[in-house]
Amino acid sequence: MPAYIDPPNATGIAAQTVARRAAPQDLIFHAGWFCPFAGRVWVALEEKGIPYQYKEQNPYDKDPEFLKLNPKGLIPALQHDGRGLYESNILLEYLEDAFPSAPALRPRDPHEAALARLALQFISTTVVPAFFRLMQAQGQEKQDEAKESFVQVLKELYNQWFDKQTGAQWARNDTFGWIEAALAPFLARFPLLAAHRAFSIEMVGPDFSSWAERVLDRPSVRAVLSAPEAYHTIYGRYFNDTAKSQVAQATRSAA
Amino acid sequence: MPAYIDPPNATGIAAQTVARRAAPQDLIFHAGWFCPFAGRVWVALEEKGIPYQYKEQNPYDKDPEFLKLNPKGLIPALQHDGRGLYESNILLEYLEDAFPSAPALRPRDPHEAALARLALQFISTTVVPAFFRLMQAQGQEKQDEAKESFVQVLKELYNQWFDKQTGAQWARNDTFGWIEAALAPFLARFPLLAAHRAFSIEMVGPDFSSWAERVLDRPSVRAVLSAPEAYHTIYGRYFNDTAKSQVAQATRSAA
Repeated sequence: MPAYIDPPNATGIAAQTVARRAAPQDLIFHAGWFCPFAGRVWVALEEKGIPYQYKEQNPYDKDPEFLKLNPKGLIPALQHDGRGLYESNILLEYLEDAFPSAPALRPRDPHEAALARLALQFISTTVVPAFFRLMQAQGQEKQDEAKESFVQVLKELYNQWFDKQTGAQWARNDTFGWIEAALAPFLARFPLLAAHRAFSIEMVGPDFSSWAERVLDRPSVRAVLSAPEAYHTIYGRYFNDTAKSQVAQATRSAA
Repeated sequence: MPAYIDPPNATGIAAQTVARRAAPQDLIFHAGWFCPFAGRVWVALEEKGIPYQYKEQNPYDKDPEFLKLNPKGLIPALQHDGRGLYESNILLEYLEDAFPSAPALRPRDPHEAALARLALQFISTTVVPAFFRLMQAQGQEKQDEAKESFVQVLKELYNQWFDKQTGAQWARNDTFGWIEAALAPFLARFPLLAAHRAFSIEMVGPDFSSWAERVLDRPSVRAVLSAPEAYHTIYGRYFNDTAKSQVAQATRSAA
């Protein structure tokens, strides 16, 4: 297992975004171009049009200044006027609270906001682990089981949440909210599941597919995506079970 | 394992609160008197002075009307103008959003709010599981390990979070926020850990003890606590590993 990131930096359209976000700002976004959790916050920053400075943190060689601010060295992290915060879902809340005049990704109605939080929680506790289990499943039988389980979880997400909130509204009306930001980085990695696990988004259903297509076509989402081959290079080792990241290890031991 | 709750209803001061909150209201609080997660929301409702109707839900015999609203039957749940929500941390957010003129338990500063959310997350993912592991640990060696681990987790909570937010402010200034509401029901169950596991809050440190003492003396906390012997009756079976609740099972399999 190589202790480096390959490629080390964003490529494709994301490289242009990184270049455009290189100037110092009050808000610094510490990220890894490859990290889907960083991707959520990145999409939100672009969607909301908040000025920020992008800083790539190599997880194997973290900037000492960054570690001073954030001793656990977790990415994504935000540094705003010198104060640090981390955890993607909490950063999504922070951007809503700290930039109230930017376009809202959190519903303004308290009930809708609570449903969006429940959906984010379902995504974190159920969808994301099922995604990583499918990536890491070894052997035909376990891969088939993991694929079936991932499809079911996405159907549950769609049926349970998308009728109730902005997700569904956007599926109909072109609004864009937390659910889209939280899932976009994972949707962008679905081609890997297609290539290595014969997964197809059509298995979830036509409404989900057309929703996903529109999410991936959103300018804020396109802006943070590297060249498709970069994901194949960096994620290839997940598919043959040699990944060493914390999330990979946690998912393996919970599987 | 008996499929009933014993005692079936709140006792002591909590019984008076239930009686005082029996009249119909736009906001209905579905709870179990014994459930520490319901206790968080109950403390918040009392602290904020929001009118609500208390409804006891027996987890073994749930009201069909309640199940229609909340098919998973999870408590705590809130029903507000007919619409249902659940999950204690999400309900704490909801009360802040839906009743903005009531006293705030969530810090108004966005950075402080994010720190409070990180603390709530640490409590949910680390403190609460360590609490249940200590309750359920069988055999001297495992009990000693679980106790040491619980003490360390509380020290980490105190050192990492209490200096940074309302928790600490209250420890000094008598404010009361989310961290107090989220932990109060667990603090109220510490005497069980003392009786069955020789745990003492002094093991965490004097600042934590004096903070906990003030939390437990808060009127909103006293209002939701049943008679001490009721907790001994209902929790006794946790200590000899016969509990069957979902959280008990999840904690056992994760231990």
